[in-house]
Amino acid sequence: MAHPLEGVDVFLFDVFGTVVDWQNSVAQELRTKHYDGMLELDWIAFAQEWRKGYITNTKRIAQGGEGPGNIDTLHRQILDSLLARPEWEALGKLWDEEKRKEVNLVWHQLSGWKDTTLGLYALKRHAIIGTLSNGNVRLLVDMAKYADLPWDVVFSGELLGSYKPNPKVYLSALSHLSLADAPEKVALVAAHIYDLRSAASHGYKTVYIPRETEDIDMRDDLKRHEVKSKADGGEVDLVVNSFEELAEVVAKVKRSKLL
Amino acid sequence: MAHPLEGVDVFLFDVFGTVVDWQNSVAQELRTKHYDGMLELDWIAFAQEWRKGYITNTKRIAQGGEGPGNIDTLHRQILDSLLARPEWEALGKLWDEEKRKEVNLVWHQLSGWKDTTLGLYALKRHAIIGTLSNGNVRLLVDMAKYADLPWDVVFSGELLGSYKPNPKVYLSALSHLSLADAPEKVALVAAHIYDLRSAASHGYKTVYIPRETEDIDMRDDLKRHEVKSKADGGEVDLVVNSFEELAEVVAKVKRSKLL
Repeated sequence: MAHPLEGVDVFLFDVFGTVVDWQNSVAQELRTKHYDGMLELDWIAFAQEWRKGYITNTKRIAQGGEGPGNIDTLHRQILDSLLARPEWEALGKLWDEEKRKEVNLVWHQLSGWKDTTLGLYALKRHAIIGTLSNGNVRLLVDMAKYADLPWDVVFSGELLGSYKPNPKVYLSALSHLSLADAPEKVALVAAHIYDLRSAASHGYKTVYIPRETEDIDMRDDLKRHEVKSKADGGEVDLVVNSFEELAEVVAKVKRSKLL
Repeated sequence: MAHPLEGVDVFLFDVFGTVVDWQNSVAQELRTKHYDGMLELDWIAFAQEWRKGYITNTKRIAQGGEGPGNIDTLHRQILDSLLARPEWEALGKLWDEEKRKEVNLVWHQLSGWKDTTLGLYALKRHAIIGTLSNGNVRLLVDMAKYADLPWDVVFSGELLGSYKPNPKVYLSALSHLSLADAPEKVALVAAHIYDLRSAASHGYKTVYIPRETEDIDMRDDLKRHEVKSKADGGEVDLVVNSFEELAEVVAKVKRSKLL
């Protein structure tokens, strides 16, 4: 039987959470550079609430709701709303316009998970690699320079006209890859099952990677979804534990095709 | 006086002719792999006519005319029209649908000029580098993999909604770089003065590089436009003879700012 990744020429990656560790990066940056004396603040909780606002709003806008198409703008709106809440209003009084602009750029400088850079370099030798992210282009490019992510192509929600999981995003990426008629040549790699389910519905292959901050239900004691490959009775094409593992699998599949 | 490239964070490159040598690449590939016994054909002339069809058509479509937004589609239409001409109709009879599809992909595998790859790698350490090309995304990505062009971002006419020199292309790239309000932080690098003039009209900085196949008037004994920098009484911000020279200039400007 053919390997599920046989024939895949392009790997597109969700970015926030899948490629980069937003939670520790944001909390660490705020704690060390922007704490303004407020050491007692729970910066992880602050990062989580910021991220939650992003998820809620992009999902709503993807379904046709009103809101900015640019993630920097959206991040700034959410930041302002957090700083108006009782638990952070003291910080809100300290952070003026200029400071908020600066703090908002924290999302441009997130660190990759420890396997991402080497894994992407290895995979890039065998396939086209790119982003399929709700982040805007400049944010994704700055992040790539900062975290050393060697993308061949940067697809973003703003560039493609909507946010994931709106079908437009997945279909437009296929079209720009000249693969509208052969979506099975593209795999989405993500730490979020909702994203992979949408991609699969448009014919993409799917690769799931569990990440400690992603796909967890805060209400249910941080229980992660259990996602399995089709071979193991699940719904995705492959589950990997690192990008390095993914690169090894792809190298092996390509080699076996050449032999 | 400040150097004209001071403050430039992003370099966007025209691709065909500026980064890659389309004429020799296309002629060589056709001559060696697709000649089908027709050794006597002038493959340089064939490549030139193909390219001329591209220029005429993209310009017409940029001005609001009808035509495909995808360069692969446009290249194929032009190929078919060339193969119907008396001078190439013998070849036209030999090249069936499958062959024409294959031949059309010659534009995905063009070689860089000898300075391009090293120059781009050097420049990438100091700035964001990307394409601003009329080529479609897949074509540009395939070409980048083939010729080792380490773009941080790939902007294409199809992605941005028109062809150069339509203003939409230049303005949309600025917007995705979050520099709509600071176009002077972006420089366009091109071997075509028409392209640089359009970019300058939208506030871009401009870098001209003469290339032997570009900006020549076929009717006038291959005379190239004489383009000069503003410092030399001309109209562009900088003239360079190679991407390596450009990278050196930028490194020097960045260093002098840090000192």
